[in-house]
Amino acid sequence: MKKKKLVIIGGDARQTEIAEQCLRHGIRVYLIGFEKWNRHAFDIVKANGYGDVPWPDVDAILLPVSGLKEGNKVEAVFAKQNVILQEEWVKRTKSNCVVITGIHTTSLHALLTKYPRPYHKLLERDDIAIYNSIPSAEGTLLMALQETDITIHGSRTIVLGFGRTGQTIADTFSSLGAYVKVVTNATSEKARAEVMGFTTFHTNALSDIVKDGDICVNTIPALVLSKEVLTHASSRMLIIDLASAPGGTDFDYAKKRGMKALLAPGLPGRVAPVTAGRILAQVLIDLLLEKEA
Amino acid sequence: MKKKKLVIIGGDARQTEIAEQCLRHGIRVYLIGFEKWNRHAFDIVKANGYGDVPWPDVDAILLPVSGLKEGNKVEAVFAKQNVILQEEWVKRTKSNCVVITGIHTTSLHALLTKYPRPYHKLLERDDIAIYNSIPSAEGTLLMALQETDITIHGSRTIVLGFGRTGQTIADTFSSLGAYVKVVTNATSEKARAEVMGFTTFHTNALSDIVKDGDICVNTIPALVLSKEVLTHASSRMLIIDLASAPGGTDFDYAKKRGMKALLAPGLPGRVAPVTAGRILAQVLIDLLLEKEA
Amino acid sequence: MKKKKLVIIGGDARQTEIAEQCLRHGIRVYLIGFEKWNRHAFDIVKANGYGDVPWPDVDAILLPVSGLKEGNKVEAVFAKQNVILQEEWVKRTKSNCVVITGIHTTSLHALLTKYPRPYHKLLERDDIAIYNSIPSAEGTLLMALQETDITIHGSRTIVLGFGRTGQTIADTFSSLGAYVKVVTNATSEKARAEVMGFTTFHTNALSDIVKDGDICVNTIPALVLSKEVLTHASSRMLIIDLASAPGGTDFDYAKKRGMKALLAPGLPGRVAPVTAGRILAQVLIDLLLEKEA
Amino acid sequence: MKKKKLVIIGGDARQTEIAEQCLRHGIRVYLIGFEKWNRHAFDIVKANGYGDVPWPDVDAILLPVSGLKEGNKVEAVFAKQNVILQEEWVKRTKSNCVVITGIHTTSLHALLTKYPRPYHKLLERDDIAIYNSIPSAEGTLLMALQETDITIHGSRTIVLGFGRTGQTIADTFSSLGAYVKVVTNATSEKARAEVMGFTTFHTNALSDIVKDGDICVNTIPALVLSKEVLTHASSRMLIIDLASAPGGTDFDYAKKRGMKALLAPGLPGRVAPVTAGRILAQVLIDLLLEKEA
Ligand SMILES: NC(=O)c1ccc[n+]([C@@H]2O[C@H](COP(=O)([O-])OP(=O)(O)OC[C@H]3O[C@@H](n4cnc5c(N)ncnc54)[C@H](OP(=O)(O)O)[C@@H]3O)[C@@H](O)[C@H]2O)c1
Ligand SMILES: NC(=O)c1ccc[n+]([C@@H]2O[C@H](COP(=O)([O-])OP(=O)(O)OC[C@H]3O[C@@H](n4cnc5c(N)ncnc54)[C@H](OP(=O)(O)O)[C@@H]3O)[C@@H](O)[C@H]2O)c1
Ligand SMILES: NC(=O)c1ccc[n+]([C@@H]2O[C@H](COP(=O)([O-])OP(=O)(O)OC[C@H]3O[C@@H](n4cnc5c(N)ncnc54)[C@H](OP(=O)(O)O)[C@@H]3O)[C@@H](O)[C@H]2O)c1
Ligand SMILES: NC(=O)c1ccc[n+]([C@@H]2O[C@H](COP(=O)([O-])OP(=O)(O)OC[C@H]3O[C@@H](n4cnc5c(N)ncnc54)[C@H](OP(=O)(O)O)[C@@H]3O)[C@@H](O)[C@H]2O)c1
Repeated sequence: MKKKKLVIIGGDARQTEIAEQCLRHGIRVYLIGFEKWNRHAFDIVKANGYGDVPWPDVDAILLPVSGLKEGNKVEAVFAKQNVILQEEWVKRTKSNCVVITGIHTTSLHALLTKYPRPYHKLLERDDIAIYNSIPSAEGTLLMALQETDITIHGSRTIVLGFGRTGQTIADTFSSLGAYVKVVTNATSEKARAEVMGFTTFHTNALSDIVKDGDICVNTIPALVLSKEVLTHASSRMLIIDLASAPGGTDFDYAKKRGMKALLAPGLPGRVAPVTAGRILAQVLIDLLLEKEA
Repeated sequence: MKKKKLVIIGGDARQTEIAEQCLRHGIRVYLIGFEKWNRHAFDIVKANGYGDVPWPDVDAILLPVSGLKEGNKVEAVFAKQNVILQEEWVKRTKSNCVVITGIHTTSLHALLTKYPRPYHKLLERDDIAIYNSIPSAEGTLLMALQETDITIHGSRTIVLGFGRTGQTIADTFSSLGAYVKVVTNATSEKARAEVMGFTTFHTNALSDIVKDGDICVNTIPALVLSKEVLTHASSRMLIIDLASAPGGTDFDYAKKRGMKALLAPGLPGRVAPVTAGRILAQVLIDLLLEKEA
Repeated sequence: MKKKKLVIIGGDARQTEIAEQCLRHGIRVYLIGFEKWNRHAFDIVKANGYGDVPWPDVDAILLPVSGLKEGNKVEAVFAKQNVILQEEWVKRTKSNCVVITGIHTTSLHALLTKYPRPYHKLLERDDIAIYNSIPSAEGTLLMALQETDITIHGSRTIVLGFGRTGQTIADTFSSLGAYVKVVTNATSEKARAEVMGFTTFHTNALSDIVKDGDICVNTIPALVLSKEVLTHASSRMLIIDLASAPGGTDFDYAKKRGMKALLAPGLPGRVAPVTAGRILAQVLIDLLLEKEA
Repeated sequence: MKKKKLVIIGGDARQTEIAEQCLRHGIRVYLIGFEKWNRHAFDIVKANGYGDVPWPDVDAILLPVSGLKEGNKVEAVFAKQNVILQEEWVKRTKSNCVVITGIHTTSLHALLTKYPRPYHKLLERDDIAIYNSIPSAEGTLLMALQETDITIHGSRTIVLGFGRTGQTIADTFSSLGAYVKVVTNATSEKARAEVMGFTTFHTNALSDIVKDGDICVNTIPALVLSKEVLTHASSRMLIIDLASAPGGTDFDYAKKRGMKALLAPGLPGRVAPVTAGRILAQVLIDLLLEKEA
């Protein structure tokens, strides 16, 4: 069977891990924007002048987790200079060349309107969000360990939201011996949380339960830790807010009250880039080797 | 505030527990078909000749988990004689009197077509299925403890399906030290299972993994433990099949091969009727006291 | 290397499992008192008239867990008639033939005073007591599942003693979602229990905590559940008493109060004989193959 | 009852937490060497010129965890200048004034030979070592999270030693989803580890199992990670060595092989001083209020 060909344009340590995993699965990888990555292997080709990428033969293009930015810019931490995706590249690919990105962006939308290609947004997949909840939970844990002078064991930890990420975080803290309270309004999440042994609360009980929390982790993308709620909180409570920007915390008010409140974006890539890369690689390789429908 | 009035028609130990819980929440309970239940309390009225049920004033009617059977028969283990629901009763209730049943049946459908009333099928609710997964898992455990001569700890346990019930069963056996393999085809269930530490398999790998299983618990309502698959299974493997009748096992073939294969219907009511009653009571009381939208 | 030779005199399903394990390890096994066990294999010899046991060549003799009873009787559930150990047999063995028993008895003491042989009491070993805590805990669990109408999940379970058995029981019930209170007077056991997430109490607080227990498991070999304490207990609390006879419960008084109190001796052999046999086999084989000092 | 009087000489954030806890228990605290600690309360007296400590009335003296150093120096991070314990102070105390220290030192021995006083070494107590295993395990976790680019979940973690600290570390990593291998030569520790679900190995198998470890945590105070063993280790394996100085690792050789190997002394005080202080306070207060024999 002919080897599959993947072009990786930009990215960070996650993409280098993806390259490694592809190598293991017999996929040939072309890299654009990885001059500073010191890795040599037969099936890893660092594109040089781009003439060496056989575009019409390419099976898939991988963009970074952050997708395609304005002006077709691509984030690339291993690049020696700015990386700009040339429309020409995409144009030359075959019509079933798959474009894979972390998230959707308007630039990418524009590009794919012009050159329609099959298209996957990895971070919007349910399975990837669930797998990513592991490095997210461990990143949250790291911050809690660094920012408190007590142990997680025995701490009173409040977890807001019991979706894909909140469930793993609650489980992680609880398994270290924290007393975990889960806040969710969804009846089926409440049921699952209770089956897993957590006490549960509605968001409208928040003002009450923040009174004696040591750590509060938020995963609800809505202003739940409002001024109103924070007024009642212990000023010694640490807030770690994972919800997508701008988070669910009134950070200004928290600061005014002398509370430590941290917005924690992009934990998987920061705390465990290799694992985060493997998570993406696993799905990407399945897509590429057509194991999936 | 006026006390809410609930009529419980038939049922088993779950319904008596529901009566107890209603009592605690200030609900007045009328019982039909509970002559053999020896319980006396001011707000528990055992209907006698039915003249003593103030039908026009009733807020809700509770049928057993099995619903309304043919000929409007109602299962009633505490009754001294057969219990038949009289259409007259329903007819006399007000139009917003809520009818609550475990499952949907054709008799009930016919009745409510004639006398439309708000209508709840408890067992079809997602939260109740999740809460019920606890007594289901413990019932499964009980059978496994009884039917094997090894410990669960260290046993190789296969769990088919990772939905509401399968997830709790896998967790239960694993927390006792079993080596649990989870079989699911859904990518997000697979992801959650792996986050929880299980190795996962596709159903098409079943023939392979049953080779060295000690215990196999099925929750998939489809013929997964087919003759084809069972041919490869260790003949010492115990099968506990929870999937709704007829289960997911070729029981005839299993028997032929000398395997122990058990269909295990209705575990919650059998293994922990009080807890099973409380699970229903909690939702029922929320409905009755209108805590829920 | 010459094959080791083991004679198994009497016993139950644990001894048949030991025979199986010895077979796997290349040990030749002679059985006395196993006529009803239907198993044939080259290296398993059912002694017939005892002429066929080469006593001078035997490396070890295994007695049942219950040891050697009065009149040199040996418990043997697979025997067709009573099994009596003949002193002649031991007399003919070489002086370094090892005698292995479950527990010490006076008959055995007398025998070995007459014919001194190296001597091991398996049940008195710390490691075996720890391994056995698994089937003990699962046996306790089985009884709790059978004897209550609530789930273990959410139950208030009290564990008396946090030694080798109590620790595993507390962990087992807690991992199923019970709220576990641990009672111990030893400061280091208290510390370990708290590290494992349990709340701990001194025995002198017992009268207080039995007030709202659902299940109470005792492993303390002393009268801890005295009349004095039981007076305060909820009459619905189930007592499972594992402590060696006569247990740690005032059973008469419990009965008078209408409480269910069960003495539960010999759980490992009853609930999981194969595992219990393997636990013994593992140590026995190490001894026989001299892997141990 | 007259208030107990405690003098705290030097220390760090653990001692300030001890002061706080004593305050709550109605103990009057005199502080020497805490000028930089900004805390005011009626029963907390910062000694000034030492004239204000009523020595003949003092019930106990607390030295830091590190004890009394050469020249009677005392570590004191909140002091503005060096703190030297004056023999005069001890001389003036009553003969049953208790001296409490973390560890034994020769200076302290000399002092107490001259002025005999009841004497407690907190860190040598079994219960404190067990409680301290929590912050030790969390400190180890923090280092592992910081120093690897993979998640703990799914990592292959080797824990050397299964004593008080090793047991908690193995449990902590395992509960986060690591595959934990435990190395111990003690049969009862091996049994407990297996009951808890770990695979176990003898130290003489070390060369073999380090081949595919991601993280190796050592708690054995002996040269176990010798040059001989490290030769076989994956060079990407992170070593965290907790064993008391000089640790159990050939650090020079590890460095030569390009391995990351970290000696991690005093984790409790560094990672969770408040919890570490509370652990000491709990025992100290029991001693002071004579709750203990
Ligand atoms: N910083 C990081 O590294 C990181 C990592 C992972 C995720 N995230 C972010 O974390 C957030 C959660 O991600 P997820 O994957 O866990 O999402 P999810 O599975 O959709 O879970 C979201 C949770 O929030 C609840 N929720 C949403 N809107 C709510 C509202 N207005 N009021 C009350 N509850 C509400 C949901 O309850 P319902 O089911 O009732 O809606 C659910 O419990 C997202 O913003 C995501 O971008 C950040
Ligand atoms: N005996 C008892 O006491 C008892 C107690 C509880 C439940 N049950 C029965 O157990 C069954 C499962 O209940 P549940 O609440 O866990 O349901 P659920 O949440 O819907 O889970 C069902 C599981 O089966 C899988 N599945 C369904 N059809 C499949 C197919 N054709 N091939 C492969 N996988 C399939 C589902 O995967 P997808 O998500 O991919 O469909 C899911 O993993 C039901 O039949 C229920 O009536 C019995
Ligand atoms: N029924 C069965 O199947 C079964 C199975 C296993 C064990 N057992 C029995 O269960 C009992 C415990 O076995 P084990 O292996 O766990 O023993 P163990 O390790 O010695 O533990 C005994 C526990 O009881 C405590 N204890 C002993 N005497 C006490 C007293 N007078 N007051 C307060 N606490 C006291 C011990 O505390 P300290 O450390 O402070 O003494 C320890 O916590 C034994 O009687 C054993 O024969 C029965
Ligand atoms: N860095 C920190 O923050 C920190 C925190 C806590 C502890 N520690 C240090 O960690 C070490 C362990 O503390 P611990 O409280 O866990 O002690 P412990 O309870 O005595 O455990 C020590 C473990 O090491 C084993 N061991 C001792 N010597 C051995 C040898 N020569 N060969 C093989 N195994 C041996 C013991 O097995 P046996 O039972 O067979 O002897 C046991 O498994 C100590 O050095 C302590 O000072 C450091």
